[in-house]
Amino acid sequence: MRIDILTLFPEMFNIFDYSILGRAKEKGLVDINLHNIRNFSSNKHKKVDDYPYGGGAGMVMSAQPIVDCIKNVKEKNIGKVIFLGPRGEKFTQDKANELSKEPELIFLCGHYEGIDERAYKYIDEEISLGDFVLTGGEMACIPVIDSICRLIPGVLATSQSYEEESFYNGLLEYPQYTRPETFQGEKVPPVLISGHHENIRKWRRARSLIITREKRPDLFKKFNLTKEDKKLLNNITKL
Amino acid sequence: MRIDILTLFPEMFNIFDYSILGRAKEKGLVDINLHNIRNFSSNKHKKVDDYPYGGGAGMVMSAQPIVDCIKNVKEKNIGKVIFLGPRGEKFTQDKANELSKEPELIFLCGHYEGIDERAYKYIDEEISLGDFVLTGGEMACIPVIDSICRLIPGVLATSQSYEEESFYNGLLEYPQYTRPETFQGEKVPPVLISGHHENIRKWRRARSLIITREKRPDLFKKFNLTKEDKKLLNNITKL
Repeated sequence: MRIDILTLFPEMFNIFDYSILGRAKEKGLVDINLHNIRNFSSNKHKKVDDYPYGGGAGMVMSAQPIVDCIKNVKEKNIGKVIFLGPRGEKFTQDKANELSKEPELIFLCGHYEGIDERAYKYIDEEISLGDFVLTGGEMACIPVIDSICRLIPGVLATSQSYEEESFYNGLLEYPQYTRPETFQGEKVPPVLISGHHENIRKWRRARSLIITREKRPDLFKKFNLTKEDKKLLNNITKL
Repeated sequence: MRIDILTLFPEMFNIFDYSILGRAKEKGLVDINLHNIRNFSSNKHKKVDDYPYGGGAGMVMSAQPIVDCIKNVKEKNIGKVIFLGPRGEKFTQDKANELSKEPELIFLCGHYEGIDERAYKYIDEEISLGDFVLTGGEMACIPVIDSICRLIPGVLATSQSYEEESFYNGLLEYPQYTRPETFQGEKVPPVLISGHHENIRKWRRARSLIITREKRPDLFKKFNLTKEDKKLLNNITKL
């Protein structure tokens, strides 16, 4: 996937040099290109913001550098222009799946007290990370890109690891344990070292259901319980 | 505020060296301390993960290095231990406000296919960024810390700038415009250059209401309209 990021702080995206995304970049699975919006300012002092018309605190990002930066990037990337902003659709795993299938994407990060409304016509889609305020779009862009890129085939070591995890099937994940068998006097649940695959599967499914019911009743309500799920929940003490 | 971050990738937090958070650190308003969980592994190869008991894809983070790292950090920071994970309460502006009043906080970033369940007893609170999967807790920790720190007095230039913004009062923000007056043939709404403060206030309030109603009907429904708000919405064509 080719990604172009338009930002006032390209250095912030060094974060993608490490761990899973770092390896994906090295393998050529993800090609991230950074563009400093400031370089596109036609102002002689390379100003990118100004006071808001009508008064008020903070600075507004000017339309000109944003629009010229988008136009320039569009010569190399024909993907849609996504703006990280509060008016957008809330980001979810479904959206991550949808966007992970695109060959090219452009991300615009705003800053200060927002962007000049007249730049909006160059934006194809607005995405919001959640109902909270950030210092800049970069802080939202990073998890959004991370979430999309990890779904690109080859980025994670095995395809299995994203089929079992939280939100993929609508349930939270079951508890995980690794060595040692006893940690600070607490043992791994015996079923997990029984070698009985069918019992392990049932135990994990039951735990996923219980955890989701307790921690995220909203997800649990939306979830279509199978016949087996209902049986597992009724017999929970036996597992 | 003192913040301690427990992570396998301390380099990722260089992102806080720039922009608003960078200045907050320089001014001493925010003191961010990074701890590499790997340094606390008692394993001679400094291993921090292992295969999950019961099988399955991916690796699970071992309890020992996490727990020893938390214990070490707790000698210097008495704040609560917050884990970024999918089972947590969803992060909102209310949570950001609440946490911005704490003098000290500890953040634990998980990685791989989760952490050994037995480490959970050292965690005071779990926070989820949203219903999507990330490569690691770092990607969630960054916007959460950003959102909290910008509310600390002195971090933003004026206190006004976070009183008017999206989610602070339950409405999305009104459109912003800055110079030039005409951009690509499109003019700034005349009211904003009228100098009539009361009309500007009404125009902005009406636009906030309309945008919220259109883009976020869920927020609009929860919002208590004032008498003036109802009047503004009924007379919208006049503004």
